[in-house]
Amino acid sequence: MTEHVVDLLGVLAYTELTAFSRLAADAEHAPALAERMAMADLAAGQYRHFHLLTARIVELGARPQDAMAPYVASVDAYHDRTRPNGWPERLVKAYVGDEINSDFYRELAIHVDSATAALVEEVVTDSAGLDVIAQLIRSAVEADPRLAGRLALWARRLVGEALSQAQRIVIDRDALAVLLVGDLDLPADDLNRMTRVLGRLTDRHTDRLRVLGLAP
Amino acid sequence: MTEHVVDLLGVLAYTELTAFSRLAADAEHAPALAERMAMADLAAGQYRHFHLLTARIVELGARPQDAMAPYVASVDAYHDRTRPNGWPERLVKAYVGDEINSDFYRELAIHVDSATAALVEEVVTDSAGLDVIAQLIRSAVEADPRLAGRLALWARRLVGEALSQAQRIVIDRDALAVLLVGDLDLPADDLNRMTRVLGRLTDRHTDRLRVLGLAP
Repeated sequence: MTEHVVDLLGVLAYTELTAFSRLAADAEHAPALAERMAMADLAAGQYRHFHLLTARIVELGARPQDAMAPYVASVDAYHDRTRPNGWPERLVKAYVGDEINSDFYRELAIHVDSATAALVEEVVTDSAGLDVIAQLIRSAVEADPRLAGRLALWARRLVGEALSQAQRIVIDRDALAVLLVGDLDLPADDLNRMTRVLGRLTDRHTDRLRVLGLAP
Repeated sequence: MTEHVVDLLGVLAYTELTAFSRLAADAEHAPALAERMAMADLAAGQYRHFHLLTARIVELGARPQDAMAPYVASVDAYHDRTRPNGWPERLVKAYVGDEINSDFYRELAIHVDSATAALVEEVVTDSAGLDVIAQLIRSAVEADPRLAGRLALWARRLVGEALSQAQRIVIDRDALAVLLVGDLDLPADDLNRMTRVLGRLTDRHTDRLRVLGLAP
């Protein structure tokens, strides 16, 4: 089971490390210093998560770089396929990306030991800066209502790419499949459960679009 | 005096915020995950500094974005003029940039109130990740000794550009000149003191090249 947990922590850690770098770089594209500080704050939060996750990997006797290595290609592919165009798209990617991650973490954490589940919960609930980002998105849409449609499409693309990469990861790594859908003793049931997990993820995404003022 | 201190904290905060974004983005260019983690760690440290500095600006009754605004052009110009080419140059820029900042902070802090001096000292001594970066530079030079000359020239250019931007900032902002060289009642003495400050900065840079294995 420890191997499965290290796998889980590895993908989460690499996701956070990458989000940290991307959001910190995004901050430089902010139209004003107040927005820049908000984005930098969110980026710094990703580093805190990364730090917690890698500390736990070390506790479990593994090296963070080894735990992360299998996920580099998939996570990088997600970012390469979702390059934001302009500041509002950066804001939406920051918000939606963070929230989709949180959803995945929660699904994955259902089947792990309680210490790891508590760590994952600590990470996903530490999202202090996210409300500010949501507020910036709502303000941008209020100032220019034509943005709503474009940003809703962008958010859908982000979710689609994230689900696609996640499915690829689960196909490649049996350990994560076990954590995501429970045991694999009933292969016939497996795809079914996976579909239900993805269904929950997309439902929550629809709720979030409403929060951002992007729902139709 | 408070206005002078807010000026000082503003330039330090903007320098840290920018270094944070640049180093976090640099981390993505690391040749391996271990180096990437070292660079991300250094970047996260810059954010901690930024957070401390802006908290003090707020305590003093100013808005961080207003305190930073006068320095955006100069600090950005430094980075635009010193774009690293390849991973070893990124490492050297990270190390030398951090150390030059620390030197400036210490010089500036000599003439401020003790609470601000203590804060500045806390910021400049929090450089946990810097030793790892120095070690990575030494390893790169050991692996390819021809790098030493190129990196020493690069380091000299970084110092030159930093001093040039710093001089411009001091010319534009009397408040910082007061903090850097003491009172301005003796204008004849002013340039003299400034030269001594710059002399100390370049002396320390020579010592550092030795630490990095880049001295001739």
